[in-house]
Amino acid sequence: MTHPLPVFEDVRAAAARLKDQAVLTPLLTNPALDARMGGRIFLKAECLQRTGTFKFRGAFNALSKLSESQRRAGVVAFSSGNHAQGVAEAARILGIKAVIVMPEDAPEVKKAGVLERGAEIRAYDRETESRVEIAEALCAQSGAALIPSYDHPDVIAGQGTSGLEIFETLKAQDIQADQLVCCVGGGGLIAGINLAAEALSPSTKIYGAEPEGFDDHARSLASGDKVVNTRKGGSLCDALLTETPGELTYAINQPRLADIGVISDLEALQAVRLGFETLKLVLEPGGAAALAAVLSGKVDVKDKTTVIVLTGGNVDSAVFKQALSS
Amino acid sequence: MTHPLPVFEDVRAAAARLKDQAVLTPLLTNPALDARMGGRIFLKAECLQRTGTFKFRGAFNALSKLSESQRRAGVVAFSSGNHAQGVAEAARILGIKAVIVMPEDAPEVKKAGVLERGAEIRAYDRETESRVEIAEALCAQSGAALIPSYDHPDVIAGQGTSGLEIFETLKAQDIQADQLVCCVGGGGLIAGINLAAEALSPSTKIYGAEPEGFDDHARSLASGDKVVNTRKGGSLCDALLTETPGELTYAINQPRLADIGVISDLEALQAVRLGFETLKLVLEPGGAAALAAVLSGKVDVKDKTTVIVLTGGNVDSAVFKQALSS
Repeated sequence: MTHPLPVFEDVRAAAARLKDQAVLTPLLTNPALDARMGGRIFLKAECLQRTGTFKFRGAFNALSKLSESQRRAGVVAFSSGNHAQGVAEAARILGIKAVIVMPEDAPEVKKAGVLERGAEIRAYDRETESRVEIAEALCAQSGAALIPSYDHPDVIAGQGTSGLEIFETLKAQDIQADQLVCCVGGGGLIAGINLAAEALSPSTKIYGAEPEGFDDHARSLASGDKVVNTRKGGSLCDALLTETPGELTYAINQPRLADIGVISDLEALQAVRLGFETLKLVLEPGGAAALAAVLSGKVDVKDKTTVIVLTGGNVDSAVFKQALSS
Repeated sequence: MTHPLPVFEDVRAAAARLKDQAVLTPLLTNPALDARMGGRIFLKAECLQRTGTFKFRGAFNALSKLSESQRRAGVVAFSSGNHAQGVAEAARILGIKAVIVMPEDAPEVKKAGVLERGAEIRAYDRETESRVEIAEALCAQSGAALIPSYDHPDVIAGQGTSGLEIFETLKAQDIQADQLVCCVGGGGLIAGINLAAEALSPSTKIYGAEPEGFDDHARSLASGDKVVNTRKGGSLCDALLTETPGELTYAINQPRLADIGVISDLEALQAVRLGFETLKLVLEPGGAAALAAVLSGKVDVKDKTTVIVLTGGNVDSAVFKQALSS
């Protein structure tokens, strides 16, 4: 990687670019959840963001920084679906051709979200093909720019605008968060949030949440070396299935993360169900991972002020029905 | 009825009482919905209110105005479930004993919401018993105060705080709403919103939405006389099944409503499905009635700025699953 690490000023600049494009998502409170957990909880509802996840932030920031000639050559991205939709939506708005490399087993709702926005899908087999190789070949053919889903300074800075909004909203209400919990896939969102927290709320501890079998950050932090997951699929948290921490994201996150809660598929489904019953929000399992870490006690919120980032709501109805019965 | 009609100052006073109790629900935007409908839409997400509906506003306002001796005698309410939960929650907060008269066929999620909050349920048969008689008998026995679900000035003023928030939020962004669409059961919420609109945004047209078979407001407005519905149940919009417009509410609404859109159960389910797929919000069929009126073209939003009030999200998982397949 030759990219420099992004800094907080990049997050501020991204916020200016996103101003009339991204939804300023609400920081919700829910008295029933507070009573149940015995703490004060704020929910950053990124499931209410354009395309149903925070991913639009990073994608739009990255695409809006491309030169005119780069825009004409188009963009390529690989993603299980949420970054895919973010890139497709940003490309649609900016009039850029987009090709998305997506696993064949990506949720139908995410494939549909890409196609509806006018982007093209190149499907691949998660077990036997390399999405990186496919994407690089597409870029080599057409001269298109590859838009990484997390390991790029513009993507990290874009995702960080979510953290900027969180801490500015709390500050306006004179509230200090003791801690923040956010899911970790490649670590782009939590890296951007770390930059915002360091600048605006340095005493807030930042916790991650990862699915079982994809706890590469948890194990990397524990061992001191970046590790690679052996599993490639099979978790319901399809949004969080990366092989290993990103280079840029890990360089930002490693010294700043307090800890990582590792959650099971069942815990993710139970968090989705609580979203339905108590929060009245539609969450996908990966988007509910931070909530699951809190509900299962992996991050303790008792008598504390905690921000939980709800990162996405793009869930197939079959999985959602499964969660309602969990 | 001996109560005076509430006025806008009552709404302002209710807002002060609710300040640290009700959630200031977000006024959401959704670019995908705007693109689909060809207009600018704001969604007042009352499904994110305490207890999952706006009803907490009116209930808490009414209960907080009771005298000490009235509080000791307790309260009684009759409701299919959302007012029930609002009264139960307000009573729990204020330390008042509450008995709720609920139809036997009320959604399980609503019955559970009442019991969890420590209130007592007196079940009745919608077809053969009169909930009014049961409630009045309970009040006569115990000296408890009856808290009507809509036809009371304190309840109307409390619900109106939702409208106050809508128009203050829009004004802060220098946005003028051409129209607002809100469901109508007994007409308490839309009456409160009418008071707020008249004071803060008098050029905004206010539209109602009613379910088929329970279109008493639509038919009353058309005929000039208050009419009574012949059906008593059988609609999926369980939150909106009142017999006839209230006296106070109709006196406020009749001269102020632009029109009413009447929607079918299928249209309500399709709106619930759009809530899941596009808005990432959990809506109950009655809570999605205003959205259904817009989606089905009964209220035209093209090239206009429209507020849609999403009034509730307390839906049994069986009905929600039905909506996902609609």
